[in-house]
Amino acid sequence: MSEPRIRLGMVGGGRDAFIGAVHRIASRIDDHYELVAGALSSTPDKAIASAKDLGIAEDRAYGDFKTMAIREARLKTGIEAVAIVTPNHVHYPAAREFLKRGIHVICDKPLTSTLADAKKLAKLAESSGALFVLTHNYTGYPMIRQARQMIAAGELGDLRVVQTEYAQDWLSENLEDTGQKQAGWRTDPARSGVGGSTGDIGTHAYNLASFVTGLELRAVCADLDSFVEGRALDDNAHVLMRFDGGAKGMLWSSQVAPGNENALALRVYGTRGGLEWRQEDPNYLWYTPLGEPKRLLTRGGAGSGADAGRMTRVPPGHPEGYLEGFANIYSEAALAIKARRAGGKPPADAVYPTVQDGLAGVAFVAACVASSKRGGVWVDV
Amino acid sequence: MSEPRIRLGMVGGGRDAFIGAVHRIASRIDDHYELVAGALSSTPDKAIASAKDLGIAEDRAYGDFKTMAIREARLKTGIEAVAIVTPNHVHYPAAREFLKRGIHVICDKPLTSTLADAKKLAKLAESSGALFVLTHNYTGYPMIRQARQMIAAGELGDLRVVQTEYAQDWLSENLEDTGQKQAGWRTDPARSGVGGSTGDIGTHAYNLASFVTGLELRAVCADLDSFVEGRALDDNAHVLMRFDGGAKGMLWSSQVAPGNENALALRVYGTRGGLEWRQEDPNYLWYTPLGEPKRLLTRGGAGSGADAGRMTRVPPGHPEGYLEGFANIYSEAALAIKARRAGGKPPADAVYPTVQDGLAGVAFVAACVASSKRGGVWVDV
Amino acid sequence: MSEPRIRLGMVGGGRDAFIGAVHRIASRIDDHYELVAGALSSTPDKAIASAKDLGIAEDRAYGDFKTMAIREARLKTGIEAVAIVTPNHVHYPAAREFLKRGIHVICDKPLTSTLADAKKLAKLAESSGALFVLTHNYTGYPMIRQARQMIAAGELGDLRVVQTEYAQDWLSENLEDTGQKQAGWRTDPARSGVGGSTGDIGTHAYNLASFVTGLELRAVCADLDSFVEGRALDDNAHVLMRFDGGAKGMLWSSQVAPGNENALALRVYGTRGGLEWRQEDPNYLWYTPLGEPKRLLTRGGAGSGADAGRMTRVPPGHPEGYLEGFANIYSEAALAIKARRAGGKPPADAVYPTVQDGLAGVAFVAACVASSKRGGVWVDV
Amino acid sequence: MSEPRIRLGMVGGGRDAFIGAVHRIASRIDDHYELVAGALSSTPDKAIASAKDLGIAEDRAYGDFKTMAIREARLKTGIEAVAIVTPNHVHYPAAREFLKRGIHVICDKPLTSTLADAKKLAKLAESSGALFVLTHNYTGYPMIRQARQMIAAGELGDLRVVQTEYAQDWLSENLEDTGQKQAGWRTDPARSGVGGSTGDIGTHAYNLASFVTGLELRAVCADLDSFVEGRALDDNAHVLMRFDGGAKGMLWSSQVAPGNENALALRVYGTRGGLEWRQEDPNYLWYTPLGEPKRLLTRGGAGSGADAGRMTRVPPGHPEGYLEGFANIYSEAALAIKARRAGGKPPADAVYPTVQDGLAGVAFVAACVASSKRGGVWVDV
Repeated sequence: MSEPRIRLGMVGGGRDAFIGAVHRIASRIDDHYELVAGALSSTPDKAIASAKDLGIAEDRAYGDFKTMAIREARLKTGIEAVAIVTPNHVHYPAAREFLKRGIHVICDKPLTSTLADAKKLAKLAESSGALFVLTHNYTGYPMIRQARQMIAAGELGDLRVVQTEYAQDWLSENLEDTGQKQAGWRTDPARSGVGGSTGDIGTHAYNLASFVTGLELRAVCADLDSFVEGRALDDNAHVLMRFDGGAKGMLWSSQVAPGNENALALRVYGTRGGLEWRQEDPNYLWYTPLGEPKRLLTRGGAGSGADAGRMTRVPPGHPEGYLEGFANIYSEAALAIKARRAGGKPPADAVYPTVQDGLAGVAFVAACVASSKRGGVWVDV
Repeated sequence: MSEPRIRLGMVGGGRDAFIGAVHRIASRIDDHYELVAGALSSTPDKAIASAKDLGIAEDRAYGDFKTMAIREARLKTGIEAVAIVTPNHVHYPAAREFLKRGIHVICDKPLTSTLADAKKLAKLAESSGALFVLTHNYTGYPMIRQARQMIAAGELGDLRVVQTEYAQDWLSENLEDTGQKQAGWRTDPARSGVGGSTGDIGTHAYNLASFVTGLELRAVCADLDSFVEGRALDDNAHVLMRFDGGAKGMLWSSQVAPGNENALALRVYGTRGGLEWRQEDPNYLWYTPLGEPKRLLTRGGAGSGADAGRMTRVPPGHPEGYLEGFANIYSEAALAIKARRAGGKPPADAVYPTVQDGLAGVAFVAACVASSKRGGVWVDV
Repeated sequence: MSEPRIRLGMVGGGRDAFIGAVHRIASRIDDHYELVAGALSSTPDKAIASAKDLGIAEDRAYGDFKTMAIREARLKTGIEAVAIVTPNHVHYPAAREFLKRGIHVICDKPLTSTLADAKKLAKLAESSGALFVLTHNYTGYPMIRQARQMIAAGELGDLRVVQTEYAQDWLSENLEDTGQKQAGWRTDPARSGVGGSTGDIGTHAYNLASFVTGLELRAVCADLDSFVEGRALDDNAHVLMRFDGGAKGMLWSSQVAPGNENALALRVYGTRGGLEWRQEDPNYLWYTPLGEPKRLLTRGGAGSGADAGRMTRVPPGHPEGYLEGFANIYSEAALAIKARRAGGKPPADAVYPTVQDGLAGVAFVAACVASSKRGGVWVDV
Repeated sequence: MSEPRIRLGMVGGGRDAFIGAVHRIASRIDDHYELVAGALSSTPDKAIASAKDLGIAEDRAYGDFKTMAIREARLKTGIEAVAIVTPNHVHYPAAREFLKRGIHVICDKPLTSTLADAKKLAKLAESSGALFVLTHNYTGYPMIRQARQMIAAGELGDLRVVQTEYAQDWLSENLEDTGQKQAGWRTDPARSGVGGSTGDIGTHAYNLASFVTGLELRAVCADLDSFVEGRALDDNAHVLMRFDGGAKGMLWSSQVAPGNENALALRVYGTRGGLEWRQEDPNYLWYTPLGEPKRLLTRGGAGSGADAGRMTRVPPGHPEGYLEGFANIYSEAALAIKARRAGGKPPADAVYPTVQDGLAGVAFVAACVASSKRGGVWVDV
């Protein structure tokens, strides 16, 4: 703990942004990072003003990410890692500038706005000496780690069925035309890519299912809709999934389901048992061994194992939430970055979503869109 | 209330049966029926012994349903209605004998084991002077009536998304080969028809969605599995649905999902709000008007309307359950039968599933099976 | 099952009554009774009209309970049992007439409106050859039987803490002055006795705690209020309890707690584990063995034992409710009555609340009222 | 936000401590503080080593709190505030050293281990120029602020009933004799004071009830137990409460209730409505306006007001938890400290528990213990 903090920069996340503030809190919770530089907006004036708000030194408040990458790479105590928290279409160009200068990248999801960019970024990240961490933050929840560990240990037997969904209601009406910034870019193909709800939240659901089950997706059959008039991207998606090995799945993503705030859920069933988890109540994991009573596992409570325990700060019954889950990804990344700093390999138990997971997510969206455009046919992923 | 009870006969439901006992309790709860005759098993000896168990007079304990239909039709105080509670393949031949003699039929679901039988039965029932009531019992739950009334009144606006599922775990292993009677016939194509979980419980989920929303199903795309080795019929089904008017749906039926006892659920979302209901907690209905807090409507409680109120026996907080929901179908049928007895028309508010609903259910199963057999393509219903 | 039904009469329960209809349904569910006589109201005309509504033969529709007792006792096929479902102050005089003629009594709770009556009735019932069954119906819930069985088997170890409560909101305002019949008599000392919420619902909570734990109450300290202006009886009661052997408890009864419909709950904690149950979701029982994950036991599900199983009609996930719980008391009584009819003893496993439980309940109310009147001091029960 | 961070010291919270780490995270979440000095243990070596773990400069790692107070007060950029996170008996002597030197104190609860100390500390804090913040952290939950605002606005009408409880199970067995540090001091009168569960968690429940309702407690009647053999302090407490103005309450605190991890709950009922909140699911607040359906208010969701909104970092459905609630107290304190730094008054909306609340809590414990010792009589607070 007495190691120096990781020097962190940020691209995006200025005034009016949402996810940037989340990343900053997440980076602070376990005290592994200090934010020392930023190109916080694509509008230079706003970038500078936003940096001032955050107490970033004037000479490290940049008007654009490229300048930041160039200059920071030259500083003796320049940033060691950068958080990229812009709209999707900026992920690739921004990440490129840092990766090629050996600066580790912590990037928001989805990986990119196009499959082509995703492939290029994956290639670049793999060949770069720098680490690439994708903030599919829901994988940071302790009870998700618990579920993953149980499945890996065979406690569910052979997996048969995966049910996942991510439902919201905030886009039930045409919010994007009111000037709301978040709605604006998330419904805009130029900035988001081909997926609407599929890209914004469907990728989370798909990623979570993959992360927990370890299953490889083989094909999808999707039925996408843009229920709100005038909306270019999907706001509701119904997806059937087939996994290697024969397991089957359903995925529902929606941003037009009134009464759902941020209702990400995952249920997995195998020959020996079932697991059920809901993001809005993340400290609980329902576990049913076949033929036995349902058990309510709790974060830090009886029956909760090592993988969840590593990610737990306070005792059972003291709820941890979204920010702690997010912080767990930052802290896993910190383990890897500090190991690298010390010249070693990232420790095996520093588990976080990678560029390959990001590529898989963008491919998933592309397959869903292709399937739906062709009338809802099965498309290989 | 002082009208004489309806004289009821029963086909099936002898020793070891499950649903027959449910029908009998359901028929008693509101005291509209008395059970006076029965052909309670396809094995004559067992039929007679079962009748004796139930206190049915010896001369009205029949060894087969045809004899029962013939004799009862001749009696001055013969049965006015018959409950058919056999395995699926007997529904049609049994119903035929009673319908053609003017005896009202209360029949368990699914309507028949084949689509051909379903069409013949529908035709026969329509031309018969007798009533045909299909016990899709879940439509008898008060909060389902509440949901239906709210949607019909436009409280959800235009419907967009329907999510329904019916998950169980009792067939997670090969129970049918252990000699368990229920598992035996329900997994046997000869007695159940082409649908396994789709026929046994998927039809309930589909019927419930139709009943509550009033939407007409246009096409399905289904992915069916028989996960348990050696099982001939599906035990898990993933179905995408397209409704007339543009609403979309997903339906999951499973009998291999550990931790699910009888988890039928329905969620409906429209432009103005959402509704969520779970069969295992049937006295609650979640209602979210778009942009307002979620409300928990309760059977008989504030905000619960006339359609639910008609079906409610005890005050809010005094839970009614499965048997009362089932009884509600019997009592709706009794209203119609007594009106007919008095020479009138069934009252408009006697609402129960009909032979047409049954036909739609069998057609739904046939379409799912056809879709899945062809690799998971869209099939019109 | 082929034994003849028990011939049942009813005192009270005419038009506008609530609990009488509940008793009638409860008596029908398992088909052990037929209602053949009644003195259904203290107003003779209403009594006769109510009997007609229910299809009771004219010559067995009585204007008062005494006449009914006398005449039925003389009939060859007179009633074998009577259900007394009047306001509390009539329980004793009515029960007396039947008990002394050897007719079994099934009586609503609380036992009587005064402690003096309760003692006399207890004495009479004990000396009578007839059975006395008190419908503390909540003891009929399967998961309550499950809880009782587990505690008796030592699965909770030595009991330490009992938390019970029964909260409602229907008397939050002065409903009694609007002419509402139920509110009228339940807030009237002349008809209810000295307890308001304590008598009406607190006795249920106390009885349930006693039934499940087997603990003997030694002393109470109570703080009673009549929050609604002008109300003579308590509408809210806070009670501390001390049991023999050192266990402690709290009991809250309230009819002025907005948001509580019929919120009876029981929680019991011992050295080895804890149990939690809520009447509004009665098919669930939470069980935590100390140091292990919480388990959700379900009616008929895995981990549910013989005592609950005896009382279960349909598979797990098919919810049973208030009426089935009530019916279970009637069916337990039927076992005893039929055994008596056959000249035998009631079977050991026919478990229902008795006149002694009723006496304990009235004594509990008296002790609470006495404690509160003296400023909230400890009073021995 | 660009103001310099508050320089913070810490007393207690070294290796093996629990609550110190919580305070540190809470102080970081909103970036208002930097930890620059510490006397982290009563064992000087451990204090120094613990400071090193945390990256505190060597010359500001102190072996005892008095030295720290003296030296920091002399530094130009010495600490502006100190967090005191020791066992209870150290709160007073430590706070005294800082307060008298004008250093603001953020102190864990309960205020002190004795009522005498509490009175002295209250007097000192009032006369000091420094601020005193007591971390009754549960008052920092957004939905608790929401509840408080609603009650203050009269949405519940006149309050009648307060039900609060705080149940845990971690002391169900004799953990203190196993060497577990937390159990050790919390069950030791010399370090905790006269209250066991009452002091450790009962004070939280009492404080929360007071904070939300604004009611003044007048008298208590308490029944305390030490169920675990050999335990000197109470591990279970049943308390009746009478408030000024006529409202009544019950409070249960327990550390021997298996199945309860950290089950703090508050329910408040008035003439116009009811509110219910549970700490383990803190993002929800149930609100029932009398005669209307129950509503589930969510943090940041529809129907959630300004007081909750101020304390909310992420959108509804993204759960915040214990650490964020704790951070809210730190951030409220920061508002006050920064205002003071700028020479102004703390802003009116910086709301946090004060030394007076702490004194009330210690008085509450003293009254409960006195009541119980005298057999469970009413004692004025």
